[in-house]
Amino acid sequence: MANHQLLVLAGDGIGPEVTGAALQVLDRVAEIGGWVVEIERADIGGTAIDTYGDPFPEKTQRAIDKASAVLLGAVGGPKWDQAPKRPEAGLLAMRQYMGLWANLRPYHVFKGLEHLSPLRKAQVDGIIFRELTGGLYFGEPRGRRFLPGDLEVIDTLQYRRSEMWRIIKLAFEYARDHHLTLTSVDKANVLESSRVWREVTDELSKQFPDVPVVHRYVDASAMDLVLNPDRYQVIVTENLFGDILSDLAGGLVGSLGLLGSSSVAGTPGTRGLFEPVHGSAPDIAGKGIANPTGAMLSLAYLVGWSWSESEAQQLIESAVAESLAEGPHTPDLGGNASTEEFTQAVIQRL
Amino acid sequence: MANHQLLVLAGDGIGPEVTGAALQVLDRVAEIGGWVVEIERADIGGTAIDTYGDPFPEKTQRAIDKASAVLLGAVGGPKWDQAPKRPEAGLLAMRQYMGLWANLRPYHVFKGLEHLSPLRKAQVDGIIFRELTGGLYFGEPRGRRFLPGDLEVIDTLQYRRSEMWRIIKLAFEYARDHHLTLTSVDKANVLESSRVWREVTDELSKQFPDVPVVHRYVDASAMDLVLNPDRYQVIVTENLFGDILSDLAGGLVGSLGLLGSSSVAGTPGTRGLFEPVHGSAPDIAGKGIANPTGAMLSLAYLVGWSWSESEAQQLIESAVAESLAEGPHTPDLGGNASTEEFTQAVIQRL
Ligand SMILES: CC(C)[C@H](C(=O)O)[C@@H](O)C(=O)O
Ligand SMILES: CC(C)[C@H](C(=O)O)[C@@H](O)C(=O)O
Repeated sequence: MANHQLLVLAGDGIGPEVTGAALQVLDRVAEIGGWVVEIERADIGGTAIDTYGDPFPEKTQRAIDKASAVLLGAVGGPKWDQAPKRPEAGLLAMRQYMGLWANLRPYHVFKGLEHLSPLRKAQVDGIIFRELTGGLYFGEPRGRRFLPGDLEVIDTLQYRRSEMWRIIKLAFEYARDHHLTLTSVDKANVLESSRVWREVTDELSKQFPDVPVVHRYVDASAMDLVLNPDRYQVIVTENLFGDILSDLAGGLVGSLGLLGSSSVAGTPGTRGLFEPVHGSAPDIAGKGIANPTGAMLSLAYLVGWSWSESEAQQLIESAVAESLAEGPHTPDLGGNASTEEFTQAVIQRL
Repeated sequence: MANHQLLVLAGDGIGPEVTGAALQVLDRVAEIGGWVVEIERADIGGTAIDTYGDPFPEKTQRAIDKASAVLLGAVGGPKWDQAPKRPEAGLLAMRQYMGLWANLRPYHVFKGLEHLSPLRKAQVDGIIFRELTGGLYFGEPRGRRFLPGDLEVIDTLQYRRSEMWRIIKLAFEYARDHHLTLTSVDKANVLESSRVWREVTDELSKQFPDVPVVHRYVDASAMDLVLNPDRYQVIVTENLFGDILSDLAGGLVGSLGLLGSSSVAGTPGTRGLFEPVHGSAPDIAGKGIANPTGAMLSLAYLVGWSWSESEAQQLIESAVAESLAEGPHTPDLGGNASTEEFTQAVIQRL
């Protein structure tokens, strides 16, 4: 009987509610699958600042070391907006600590929820592979320098070729396995790093002769994603472009509450961090009405990726899709179901 | 009788056709206004590479020195994709040469063309103030460094406080004069440069107490622009974010052929570069069916900004809007009018 170690970082705002709902689903699929999950909990973000004065405390690091996967709720909130240490810094530190270089963000319009998309033709179904530990997020030097009567500030967009290679290869493998087109997004007409990115993509392309590859500039793809979303299946791009485009893609779906994500450090079978795309939504926190879909889908990706429980992944994804198609819906989708009612609807369908 | 010096850089692809159409409009408004325009021409981009081996040749620089405004068509095309010098490099060099630190990109859905927008609710009407000579586009150092078995590449996002100040101030002035809300877009939760950007915005805000200001992260605003475009009126942001968001905004309008832009180096009354947002469209070049709307609107911005001919600007903008509402339409808008037929329709309405 398989035995999995899960670390839950419920985090701030609606984080505890949506991870709580996902854990109910996990209970049931583990029972069905006949496996056991040991659950640990630790703090991250704002709640960690409150308790430890640190958004990513030592204790949480030790808990991560023991886990075979991490489920995260949400971090941040107005309470810590003026804090000297910001909750998001905990997220960035964790990404670096866990070496999570790949962020996978599937986006698609669910059956029955087409009306949520702002687009007339909501043919929106793709996945973004975003590099997560390089680029402008961690490059050095960064900082300010005083000039006579002025101030200079720099950030550094830094990449190693090997860092590009592994994320682009992961996206190629996915595109090959699912018979999809790969779109590589860069700004090679301006950035030197993007030129290297394009070279790496072209070189890897030779190893994947069956995968059609398209190069697009980031500005053109932002436009094209709203005009012709059906042309995009698998997108691979660097950290900041991925940050922008994956939120844009979330906008095309019409609700962030419906999206989960995976942040991983290797191929399937390895440890990862799985979290909904929505934020901590302080305005509805504690009211029991948060939409747990993003957390449930993140859980589905978690069991499939880190634990190789692909049947359980399927089960969760189908039960969530059916529940979204048939209702009841939480208020963000125009319904009046509670988090608990929606969760029960999903569990019944497992 | 006012006397204006115009430099026309027709450029590549459909560039000559659309600037040609705009010049017919200019002829007529100059006649109506009783002023005289001296027109010079020079090369830029691909055609300049063909003639001078340089996308921004010396001769073009000298022509710029004499002009009080520049109208540009389009640069680039597959012919030069593998060239050692790229046509776009001419554009970037010209921006730097002319010191064009502000790029203004109005975007709105025209009456009668709502169906072109990919959005169900096409409440799309705003203007983006993009910083144009700083950030990742020109920051140093940039380049590659060989490591044992690897390669490192960097680009530098560099700004001076004074560079931020002048563009943000320009956007504040516009928002104040038009009684609009200003949205400042940054990534202050990650980038040091964005933190300075936010500080500058907050400081300038004190000089413009009547202008409501909103700070948004670039990822959130990419999403929000497709979900709630009506919340955006005036956007101000740094170079690369502005590149991405202004193309995104163009996507919301539904056709790049309808957008013009201004690149300027100061307040109204100064020299600038005015160009349609669309590319060189090599597939339809020479067929006489390109939509000249973007070039005509750019001309409208030119006469208003650089020459203070605000009546002429009004005249052109109204005539274009009426022609778009009533037709005939060029093929990109679903009609079968030629560039010339559309141009005549506009001229009749002047
Ligand atoms: C909170 C922020 C630092 C983070 C990022 O930019 O990566 C977020 O936008 C995300 O996409 O996970
Ligand atoms: C051609 C390219 C260098 C340019 C830019 O990125 O500035 C273009 O996208 C633009 O927006 O004018």
